[in-house]
Amino acid sequence: MTQTPKKAVVLLSGGLDSTTTLAIALAAGFQVHAITFRYGQRHANEVEAARRVAACFPVARHVVCTFDLGKFGGSALTDNRPVPHADRIEDIGRQIPITYVPARNTVFLSFALAWAETLETGHIFIGVNALDYSGYPDCRPEYIRAFQTMANQATKAAVEGTCPVTIHTPLIQMTKADIIRRGLQLGVDFGLTTSCYDPSPDGRACGHCDACLLRLRGFAEAGTVDPIPYLSTSAEHGTQ
Amino acid sequence: MTQTPKKAVVLLSGGLDSTTTLAIALAAGFQVHAITFRYGQRHANEVEAARRVAACFPVARHVVCTFDLGKFGGSALTDNRPVPHADRIEDIGRQIPITYVPARNTVFLSFALAWAETLETGHIFIGVNALDYSGYPDCRPEYIRAFQTMANQATKAAVEGTCPVTIHTPLIQMTKADIIRRGLQLGVDFGLTTSCYDPSPDGRACGHCDACLLRLRGFAEAGTVDPIPYLSTSAEHGTQ
Repeated sequence: MTQTPKKAVVLLSGGLDSTTTLAIALAAGFQVHAITFRYGQRHANEVEAARRVAACFPVARHVVCTFDLGKFGGSALTDNRPVPHADRIEDIGRQIPITYVPARNTVFLSFALAWAETLETGHIFIGVNALDYSGYPDCRPEYIRAFQTMANQATKAAVEGTCPVTIHTPLIQMTKADIIRRGLQLGVDFGLTTSCYDPSPDGRACGHCDACLLRLRGFAEAGTVDPIPYLSTSAEHGTQ
Repeated sequence: MTQTPKKAVVLLSGGLDSTTTLAIALAAGFQVHAITFRYGQRHANEVEAARRVAACFPVARHVVCTFDLGKFGGSALTDNRPVPHADRIEDIGRQIPITYVPARNTVFLSFALAWAETLETGHIFIGVNALDYSGYPDCRPEYIRAFQTMANQATKAAVEGTCPVTIHTPLIQMTKADIIRRGLQLGVDFGLTTSCYDPSPDGRACGHCDACLLRLRGFAEAGTVDPIPYLSTSAEHGTQ
């Protein structure tokens, strides 16, 4: 008799981090339920990337939730404001940039919590990373711990003690290069993923926003080439 | 020189509790930004009630957010399952009923948090009530405290110390009769509000679901008559 695998909800943005997180959850034996958000971001190509990724893995179900965080305003990722390009990669993470979307991970994790409770599981995976990141407050370990504590007061199953909530953050202390190496070990095709905040109309990454700079440095440090196409990149990254 | 009023986000469902909460926030001098959710509930009449209420108060802005918690399943309020009718009002709150929507207040408060941060305020009002309620875990003081702690780790403004988050719950220790009396003192027209889980097609309250029973008892205890129409009610409540 085979044991029924434990269920998990995995947040999947279609980026490098969440795709590696999904591969880690599968490798750990979870039956993965992937959740993606169309939240009013200017570029829907990350939702398409999430669909490609979900189709390439043995995912039990992939749900895309739609709502509009853009109606509140306050972010270059949902408003019609220019995405900033860092002058130097060393400056990334020193200040919270305007690409920060207010309370985004809180909204995303809340939907994941709702689905997890319906699936009768307490396992939620999110690919936040506190090393090579853009300085968003809702990527820090203190935040994740506080969300988990709140979640354990929020749901029927947690309060009744049948299903405590665990927010899994397997990437939180990994560098971008570590994440890329781990993903490659698990067979992730990073050519399916997208990270750029400001892609061209034909879907090529800009090569200069914070997300591109962190991604390119990660591939360089991992000693491998990023398979996605870029409009242009600085020579230092040595990509194709 | 007049002082700019402090802003607050107020969750407004169109029910008796949230409408009284909105009136309390206005009476406390806040500039109110009301937020309502079309979350996949079977009956959209509460959204219409919220619009009526918002139009009757000096609200700075009213936003209706749309998404579908129903796609996860798990509740009689979003699924096509019958709404239970309590045999005895004393039994309400002893068990968490199937009208519970998984993680609903967590999702709602997360959206409120996103808007509050954009408005550069930390004040959020929610009309939860831990006395005359249906036993939902996300109406309890422990839950609200945990959400506030999480929120203060989640946002840029809270982490930078410029705008700590406070979740105001003015009704949390009030009976339904207290809430009705306070609302009437503040000039609330409860005829605008709706509470029923299972209204008739013409919008009349069923008079027998948990929400109707609690509402009717509240009006009876407050010594006044509920102005909304009911399909039928038990004689004991003495409504019209």
